[in-house]
Amino acid sequence: MPPRADLDLPIRIDRGSRVPVHQQVAEALRRAIGDGVLAPGARLPSTRAMSEVLGIARNVALVAFDELYAEGYVEGRPGSGTYVARDLPAAPRPMKEAPISSARWKARAVAAPIEAADPPGCISFRLGVPSTSPLAPEVWRRMWREVGDREPPSGYAAPAGEPRLRAAVAAYLGRSRGVTCSADELVITTGAAQALDLLVQATLDSGEAAAIEEPGYPTARRILQLRGARLVPVPVDEDGLRVDSLPSGGDAPVLVYVTPSHQYPVGMRMSIGRRLALLEWATTNDALVVEDDYDGEFRFGAPPLPALAGLDRAGRVAYVGTFSKILMPGLRVGYLLAPRPLRERVMAIKRLTDYHTPWPEQQALAGFCERGELERHVRRMRRYYAENRAVLAATLAPIAELARLRGLEAGLHAYLELRDDLDPERVGARCRERGVVVSTLADYFAGPPDRQGLLLGYGGLDPHDVRNGATVVAAAVRDEASCTGESTVAALRGRLARAR
Amino acid sequence: MPPRADLDLPIRIDRGSRVPVHQQVAEALRRAIGDGVLAPGARLPSTRAMSEVLGIARNVALVAFDELYAEGYVEGRPGSGTYVARDLPAAPRPMKEAPISSARWKARAVAAPIEAADPPGCISFRLGVPSTSPLAPEVWRRMWREVGDREPPSGYAAPAGEPRLRAAVAAYLGRSRGVTCSADELVITTGAAQALDLLVQATLDSGEAAAIEEPGYPTARRILQLRGARLVPVPVDEDGLRVDSLPSGGDAPVLVYVTPSHQYPVGMRMSIGRRLALLEWATTNDALVVEDDYDGEFRFGAPPLPALAGLDRAGRVAYVGTFSKILMPGLRVGYLLAPRPLRERVMAIKRLTDYHTPWPEQQALAGFCERGELERHVRRMRRYYAENRAVLAATLAPIAELARLRGLEAGLHAYLELRDDLDPERVGARCRERGVVVSTLADYFAGPPDRQGLLLGYGGLDPHDVRNGATVVAAAVRDEASCTGESTVAALRGRLARAR
Repeated sequence: MPPRADLDLPIRIDRGSRVPVHQQVAEALRRAIGDGVLAPGARLPSTRAMSEVLGIARNVALVAFDELYAEGYVEGRPGSGTYVARDLPAAPRPMKEAPISSARWKARAVAAPIEAADPPGCISFRLGVPSTSPLAPEVWRRMWREVGDREPPSGYAAPAGEPRLRAAVAAYLGRSRGVTCSADELVITTGAAQALDLLVQATLDSGEAAAIEEPGYPTARRILQLRGARLVPVPVDEDGLRVDSLPSGGDAPVLVYVTPSHQYPVGMRMSIGRRLALLEWATTNDALVVEDDYDGEFRFGAPPLPALAGLDRAGRVAYVGTFSKILMPGLRVGYLLAPRPLRERVMAIKRLTDYHTPWPEQQALAGFCERGELERHVRRMRRYYAENRAVLAATLAPIAELARLRGLEAGLHAYLELRDDLDPERVGARCRERGVVVSTLADYFAGPPDRQGLLLGYGGLDPHDVRNGATVVAAAVRDEASCTGESTVAALRGRLARAR
Repeated sequence: MPPRADLDLPIRIDRGSRVPVHQQVAEALRRAIGDGVLAPGARLPSTRAMSEVLGIARNVALVAFDELYAEGYVEGRPGSGTYVARDLPAAPRPMKEAPISSARWKARAVAAPIEAADPPGCISFRLGVPSTSPLAPEVWRRMWREVGDREPPSGYAAPAGEPRLRAAVAAYLGRSRGVTCSADELVITTGAAQALDLLVQATLDSGEAAAIEEPGYPTARRILQLRGARLVPVPVDEDGLRVDSLPSGGDAPVLVYVTPSHQYPVGMRMSIGRRLALLEWATTNDALVVEDDYDGEFRFGAPPLPALAGLDRAGRVAYVGTFSKILMPGLRVGYLLAPRPLRERVMAIKRLTDYHTPWPEQQALAGFCERGELERHVRRMRRYYAENRAVLAATLAPIAELARLRGLEAGLHAYLELRDDLDPERVGARCRERGVVVSTLADYFAGPPDRQGLLLGYGGLDPHDVRNGATVVAAAVRDEASCTGESTVAALRGRLARAR
């Protein structure tokens, strides 16, 4: 309905709306007053006039006026004339889609992760995604039925997490990762990212140095940047982080972030010698080692190596784990284990950032662990991923001369190292053209890459898609090699022709 | 079992443990090597000797040695002699309960909230706790049954929140708070504390000024301190924040945190004049107003005042809401509405702090809203709290000369203003002696208090406990008054005696 000129007020009644008519009228008048269309002291139309012009009951107009009167927008009384209040300060001028490019608001840019959505229908070798299809629907239903059967708590829970879940995680870490701890030493976090962020906030001041693996986990890098860390990228080799490349003494970083179970993203495990050397470095240099064991549950063939947190005797390691890869990332439940003074700082910060990780997820997971479902699920997923891994290896075996598959001993993804003359970007583009999404290793470096290749996350796919996707990857690598070969031949021919 | 001297290794086999025996043996040897009990190059006992001394199958000892060999802890081969590897770096010395009072780790103390647990069996007028008992068990069960019936997602959700829930919240805000917004303008957060923390991180640099209400919400104050804000406490009067006390120009704070619906903790509503003046100040001074509408749903008698976010035409308001008071704090679901550039910064930071608020409760809440349960529940709770409020007012009416109950128009708590000569700490102590917990207003001031009294949160109690608790409070106030009166009489008598 267009504005009614005879009333001279932009009141539109939407009779299909769930908002009561008197509220619509009051809101329109508030806006007119706020926008200065109705100036202080201006006389408002009578309720009789409003009811006639707008086609509403007079009583409805009266209720709207009463509201505005109670709120202080209008003065006088309906019947004896109603006026816009005189003591209202001049309202801010309306600004549609205000830009607020405020010079005063924090100018520092936040490094937003590049996360393009996968094209629909593609096969995506995206990293960090598990499969949820092997989770039996009745197991999943039971988790939430149990939450619904519990009495909802009226208060807040402990910032450190639900005692039931902490006890279950402590028992699990002892059995599966050789990390001996008590429930009291654990803090349940809203995902592993929060665990890392809290540890960084608790130990590092803006401008201080933090070491990261190079290549490494981009989210860890961005969290450190968000907290103002000066990044010290440290190369990795076959044995993991090059501890001998870590600065010592006054230049030593305050913390070192590592993924020893399955280096993210290239996939090797940190050797025992390197683990001990890293602990020694941390003790000597008064530093914290953050051990992110994001997918250490998934080992294939290779024996487990002791976690840094299990080897640590000097209180220098904070251990971070997550249910994101074991179960699903959408739960947002992780945990951390840290020496007491650090843990207390972490809890005080967590109390101020989200108070505690939501209660329902913690209850659902605690029941899942207590019933032994967690370990059954991990065993089931190991078999599932082992098949994916075997299919991937078998499908890519024929191109071993051109591309070597690495980092298969653990985790949910592998690194496909390409022959030096093959351009990963071009291979990736060839894959995408055929509906297969892969990542290139270059995106995982903070500085210039020292190696090149593709990353293939096989956690979120079923074996059928792994085979089809890997077949496309193999073809793309072959095509790129023959194209490179042809262009080399063409270049040599050209050079020869010019030489003649 | 004590260490076996004949083997000279501290290996204890715990046959009741779920840890396989070979793992127990391997772990004991790892520790002995790590602790330096077994030096590099030391010869290990043969598997035959181990099996005899420990009473284990020889094969079990072999498996343990194989593990250590694969891990690089030992050299040589079982059968031809096994030695501790020579290239292990010296292990860090064991330090039981390491203090890690690191001089290098962030020294700034985190202001940990004082949250003493209530004594068991007491009646607690604690603030910020709702009642969950009026929530029908079948409604609660249905929320979680729906989660269990949905297919668990294998990927991450959007950092801004589930579209279903955002749409439901947008519709609710329009109907109940007069705030018109689209789902896209909302960000679902892990509780209101996170919403505030994200807004602070997105706008304020360490050392910059932020204005808070005085008295005000301690958690907001601590979040601002955590992020390095310079606090500017601004007094409140009957109309809310004294906008005329806000510094302007170069001294103007970057953001102002306010609770206009029901000032936390003294309970008045910000008048419409003040609201408009605050918006004008923010526009003139290039500042952000953070409007925390933590319990605006619960109004009694008084008409709703338009939210600042509904009045704002200049993109100067970020609105924060929560399900903690409507439903339960343990869910940790809140939301914020902010102008686009700010919202994008908030989302980028949220992505790095917890990625997104957990998926299950977003689904549970979305269903709850979509079925109309949210509004039914709010109506039910309004009636429930109205009864609590009426009981509180009636029980404390007889002591009106000594203590005035205020801030009852909205929310889940009231402010009991004590007569000037009554000491709130002493009244509070008298209450505690009789099993009733109350808060004193002084704890809610950043600086010296300009008024005194008690705070009575009646949200988490049933009417019966409200009556009993308030009866104790009334008696405690009376006792304190007569004691104060007596001591005044005694003091006067003493003075008179000395004068004679």
